[in-house]
Amino acid sequence: MSPARPFLPVRRRLLGALGGLAAAPLLGTGLAGCAAPQASIAGTGDLGVVVERARGTLALVDTSRRQVLGEVGGLGDLSHASVVFSRDGASAFVFGRDGGLSRVSLTRGRLEQRVMQAGNAIGGAISADGTLVAAQNYVPGGVRVFDARTLELVADIPAEFAPGRLSRVVGLVDLPGRRFAFSLFDAGEIWIADLAEPARPQITRLRDIGRQPYDALVTPDGRHYLAGLFGEDGLALVDLWDETPVARRILAGYGRGQAPLPVYKMPHLRGWAVAGRLAFLPAIGRHELLVVDTATWQEVDRIAVAGQPVFAIARPDGRQVWVNFAVPDYDRVQVIDVPSRRVAATLTPGRAVLHMEFTPRGESVWISARDDDRVAVLDTMTLRTQAELTLPAPSGIFFTSRAARLGF
Amino acid sequence: MSPARPFLPVRRRLLGALGGLAAAPLLGTGLAGCAAPQASIAGTGDLGVVVERARGTLALVDTSRRQVLGEVGGLGDLSHASVVFSRDGASAFVFGRDGGLSRVSLTRGRLEQRVMQAGNAIGGAISADGTLVAAQNYVPGGVRVFDARTLELVADIPAEFAPGRLSRVVGLVDLPGRRFAFSLFDAGEIWIADLAEPARPQITRLRDIGRQPYDALVTPDGRHYLAGLFGEDGLALVDLWDETPVARRILAGYGRGQAPLPVYKMPHLRGWAVAGRLAFLPAIGRHELLVVDTATWQEVDRIAVAGQPVFAIARPDGRQVWVNFAVPDYDRVQVIDVPSRRVAATLTPGRAVLHMEFTPRGESVWISARDDDRVAVLDTMTLRTQAELTLPAPSGIFFTSRAARLGF
Repeated sequence: MSPARPFLPVRRRLLGALGGLAAAPLLGTGLAGCAAPQASIAGTGDLGVVVERARGTLALVDTSRRQVLGEVGGLGDLSHASVVFSRDGASAFVFGRDGGLSRVSLTRGRLEQRVMQAGNAIGGAISADGTLVAAQNYVPGGVRVFDARTLELVADIPAEFAPGRLSRVVGLVDLPGRRFAFSLFDAGEIWIADLAEPARPQITRLRDIGRQPYDALVTPDGRHYLAGLFGEDGLALVDLWDETPVARRILAGYGRGQAPLPVYKMPHLRGWAVAGRLAFLPAIGRHELLVVDTATWQEVDRIAVAGQPVFAIARPDGRQVWVNFAVPDYDRVQVIDVPSRRVAATLTPGRAVLHMEFTPRGESVWISARDDDRVAVLDTMTLRTQAELTLPAPSGIFFTSRAARLGF
Repeated sequence: MSPARPFLPVRRRLLGALGGLAAAPLLGTGLAGCAAPQASIAGTGDLGVVVERARGTLALVDTSRRQVLGEVGGLGDLSHASVVFSRDGASAFVFGRDGGLSRVSLTRGRLEQRVMQAGNAIGGAISADGTLVAAQNYVPGGVRVFDARTLELVADIPAEFAPGRLSRVVGLVDLPGRRFAFSLFDAGEIWIADLAEPARPQITRLRDIGRQPYDALVTPDGRHYLAGLFGEDGLALVDLWDETPVARRILAGYGRGQAPLPVYKMPHLRGWAVAGRLAFLPAIGRHELLVVDTATWQEVDRIAVAGQPVFAIARPDGRQVWVNFAVPDYDRVQVIDVPSRRVAATLTPGRAVLHMEFTPRGESVWISARDDDRVAVLDTMTLRTQAELTLPAPSGIFFTSRAARLGF
């Protein structure tokens, strides 16, 4: 597995094996003498990428055939990497820990462009209209916004919370309109940036939202921005529909401040934690999920789980929530039945489960098992394994259907 | 406008004008001597179709550039036509009133396949996993299910509610898993078909659900199936999460039975009527929208609107609901602000507004104005017109992002 495998172009899925041509670029491949194709050219709605962190490589995958199409390397440090997609689904924007922002073509299977936009970055987002790609940075602390077509810098938003002091930025999310929200870890602030005119970002600054926001989510309706706090108990909530948004503290029982247990891995917050009216939030350090009513933002239940939860991800229809865990329990995945709020199944899809991603309508879930060099694909109704893909140390999994979703 | 314009292939968006090559098939076009392309191949996530009913033609559109890419004809009777998309977004399945089921390639810009599957049809759906395309038919009354790759018939489900008597079928929707729900207009029944094994459909039959169900929706979470009743007041509701689903009557105030006003056009029901926790339902014959709490299924408000509503469609984030109207008020579109439940704006985008479709994350809405031969594209935040496309008598508008959504 060490050398990157040749790229199997998307059209190969329809034209059948092309033998020695497989390594040629997409448009060369399968076009023997420019022959007319034997089938429609495939679309990009069922494509995705799997991060191979150790090698700085992305595997390109097809969720209809459950196959690896090929790999794209040269992406730098992909620890804690995240990915967003162009509006048409043909390009993946990859945010590396080293500050690299790369554009990978899924249809050509190659790295198209790469810029070093910061010294230390922690993910990004893309605007609802697909024109702006925003990166959240630790060094220098702030947000940088790029033209999605050219990767030219169009806006630089230093997170200067005091003269000369820049905060690390976390919890960056897209909002309806050309807007983004993000949190300042070192300042305890939440900023809302309106880039209707990218050259003149309008910043709404919310102060004293709580100590050390470490991650955040926006609900799928774009209304509520919720930031987890590392420096104290509870979370900060902003109703973005208010005329003048304010941050209020909720869920003092969230965990961290009250009883600082050893935390093996901080949970991730994202819009996927919301299932219908309920949010399922990993309690920090505890073997519990908090169930929160998003109408009142009160805790309505707690669910005991198999370890310290890292991701709690609702199936797109909200009928199930799938949970993975920090060490030492990261060989397990649990499935929560939402109506009964009970653990319906405990699965062991592989060693070191790092991430899970649902297919667009949730009929399948892809699970990365890093230490087994495997991605397992499970039927979410029967829980049967539909496919297993061999990939070196897979971590994050991202499908192009995210391009059509808010807060992903 | 009478002759179908030549197809402008998707790649032309990136390679620039190709002059006389424009009419050639996609792979021929822009590949002068199989030269390597100058840019990534475009994806299909930002494509869609506009029905030109009078000509039996689909216009293929690009929602990023707000352009018409070309037209595909030969689709038969497209009155009341509906469209679903393949899982990869490359193919549109078109259900014609004449019983024709056509597969159109968006990437090649041509009709790939066409079967006459019934004598009189009224739309269809595609399974969550994208493998099964189902058509709902008036003549012969029932549902026929086809392999999405080959359009071969894989299941025939006659709606035989009494010996030798077939009902017209309406309100067909996809459910999680390989399941569909639909209503029998002539029988007053709702059927749930599980096609885990397509050769052996398992039918759950709900009787006496109410007189003359005329259309239905499934909520975006796949939980509630709601059928409008033409023959009496109210709607029929099924909680699909129940062990043994039953239909109950709700919303006696829905309109039809209680005060049979002249109805110029029956409203359409679909999952898009749900905005967060609320559903916005067109009252039949009345100049009102009913606002229903989907947690209790009680009416919580009524909103006076400019005419008999036909479509009430929530922006994907649920912050707005856009409404169009039956004659004589179909030159207007109203925008409902969801938090205040008030009419925020009344627009006149053109004469004979027949349909509206939001871009995947809702930053824009496309509106067909049949009698002005125009599709208007509006910014949903500013309500400003972003583009106007000239198309002959446009009606239904469908974007590929529907492929990733349940109940569309």
